[in-house]
Amino acid sequence: MVDHICFDVEKCELHLLDQRFLPEREEYFICRSVNDIIEALQTMVVRGAPAIGVTAAWGCVLALLDANGSSWMPHLEAALENLANARPTAINLRWAVARMRACQQQLKNKGNVDHDALLSAFLAEAATIQREDVEICRAIGHHGGALLHDGDTVLTHCNAGALATAGYGTALGVVRGAVDAGKHICVIADETRPFLQGARLTAWELQKDHIPVTVACDNACALLMGKGLVQCVVVGADRIAANGDTANKIGTCGVALLARHFNLPFYVAAPLSTIDLSTSDGSSIPIEQRPEREVTHVGQVRICPEGVPVYNYAFDVTPADYISGIVTEMGVLRYPYTTSIRAAFRAKTTMTPPAF
Amino acid sequence: MVDHICFDVEKCELHLLDQRFLPEREEYFICRSVNDIIEALQTMVVRGAPAIGVTAAWGCVLALLDANGSSWMPHLEAALENLANARPTAINLRWAVARMRACQQQLKNKGNVDHDALLSAFLAEAATIQREDVEICRAIGHHGGALLHDGDTVLTHCNAGALATAGYGTALGVVRGAVDAGKHICVIADETRPFLQGARLTAWELQKDHIPVTVACDNACALLMGKGLVQCVVVGADRIAANGDTANKIGTCGVALLARHFNLPFYVAAPLSTIDLSTSDGSSIPIEQRPEREVTHVGQVRICPEGVPVYNYAFDVTPADYISGIVTEMGVLRYPYTTSIRAAFRAKTTMTPPAF
Repeated sequence: MVDHICFDVEKCELHLLDQRFLPEREEYFICRSVNDIIEALQTMVVRGAPAIGVTAAWGCVLALLDANGSSWMPHLEAALENLANARPTAINLRWAVARMRACQQQLKNKGNVDHDALLSAFLAEAATIQREDVEICRAIGHHGGALLHDGDTVLTHCNAGALATAGYGTALGVVRGAVDAGKHICVIADETRPFLQGARLTAWELQKDHIPVTVACDNACALLMGKGLVQCVVVGADRIAANGDTANKIGTCGVALLARHFNLPFYVAAPLSTIDLSTSDGSSIPIEQRPEREVTHVGQVRICPEGVPVYNYAFDVTPADYISGIVTEMGVLRYPYTTSIRAAFRAKTTMTPPAF
Repeated sequence: MVDHICFDVEKCELHLLDQRFLPEREEYFICRSVNDIIEALQTMVVRGAPAIGVTAAWGCVLALLDANGSSWMPHLEAALENLANARPTAINLRWAVARMRACQQQLKNKGNVDHDALLSAFLAEAATIQREDVEICRAIGHHGGALLHDGDTVLTHCNAGALATAGYGTALGVVRGAVDAGKHICVIADETRPFLQGARLTAWELQKDHIPVTVACDNACALLMGKGLVQCVVVGADRIAANGDTANKIGTCGVALLARHFNLPFYVAAPLSTIDLSTSDGSSIPIEQRPEREVTHVGQVRICPEGVPVYNYAFDVTPADYISGIVTEMGVLRYPYTTSIRAAFRAKTTMTPPAF
């Protein structure tokens, strides 16, 4: 896979592979300030909850570099707050900013909060978050890969792959984990309207990895399941509530309900950083509504008559009891999730969920 | 509504509003031969089961005009056979050709099968089929309109409107019937990938009729239902088996399963000519697979990486027991459909289902 999130320490720039232009061309979007990062997040240069988290961590570094002069600390604070609110649904954004703040707090506790010391700490922490994300994805792949059988075809929705993380992927990490274990796995990628992450991104990265992938319109889901062409569904997550209810790309809930109808396992693959213990259930997860143009146009092609309103909710919530398992770096969590999620956090002693 | 299927008797041409270019521009595709008709059907210049039937009836007229010389009769027969096979799923195509053939048989029975007499008979029969189709849609609208409540929002999939019929529509006929009865009805149009009939056609014709319509990606269905934004689903049909199993645009089955989950009524609206008594159940309805390009491109924009295969099944089958009612010109048929469908055919004494 290409290095799609790359911080240039000398130039103090974050280079992001611009996912809006894939698969047509590989072009990088260069962030030189926290505002560039916010723009990249909001316009979907980069998307996918874990990748949003990693990008936000580097955003904190740029926010600190932006904030100079005597009042750098309140400036930094305001910038971090803006950054944390750039997109509402993916909790990894707030998680990453909270983790950078915790790093700042540690320095404060030691009495050392000058700009240079904090910059060193931020650079180290962002790099750690990025490196850990790949390790976590590999652990997810290891645990989840064991759930797949040789010869399975996995249906996935949206892109929860290398491009949605620092590398390897969550849902596609599960696929890669199975493939790395020697199993033959095929993938059906829902094209995933409106932003077409499945057709554009999942197909692109699996093709690069020589993992067989077929694209289908979201509408084909029931037919493909009914024909026996799917053995298992694996998707990513943008936020998982404490009870296991899972917000993910719009359409995921429908896929889960259809999987239940056709008696197919439906797995969510996500790091613990996607689980928000402060959200008790799915009803309180904020659902982002995005610009109408994502629905009314594909590229420059207008597909709706002018003046017709559209819905563009970006996410929906799959009820916990429709999820066969949540694949995390700590293993596969099972229903009831309220219990298994808390146990996973306890087990991950090295990771205390930050308060936000 | 515009006159979208219009036969010019003087020029012997069928003018079809080219639905591939809507809503961008209103351009007509002119058919001067049966091969033009077949091209129009196969490339989706015109689509929608009843509109396909009406177009095919005019196609029989052009086939007869094409067939001249001493061996016109075998030429006509071969052309009608080609025409009947232009698309596999919508049964109205075969129904219309069978009805034209029945008209030819009547002349034969009277001993008069010369080219001129048959042309007069074909012209009259095609015009009758077109006129009857609008009347049937109005009857469907009358019966179905009574199922909707003032203030309802109806979700529909694909386009089963005026553009899919000779006028007024089947599913949208139900909406128009309710509106004509003084009820306030809003419509949510699934955009209906890959051909986007909902976004392009349903939105276009409802906007022209000042019936409030909002477009949503197919993926939004479960979210919109879960939010209580939908009170009822009404869709059209391409072929209904004798037991009520219904082939319709890909994605319909998923919508029906979601409607059941959210406890919403799911109606199919179609003329009796869409019911195929010779197909016992949905498993024997042939499902058309259409060109990959419909999925891989939107206009000239490529949305999948080159070389990635795609599924493009054009229809799926909704099991009869997920259908709350089938709205026909003879009234609303209820489960078990094997009984209610036969009763409807018996009641429609003027219409003997042709054998094909």
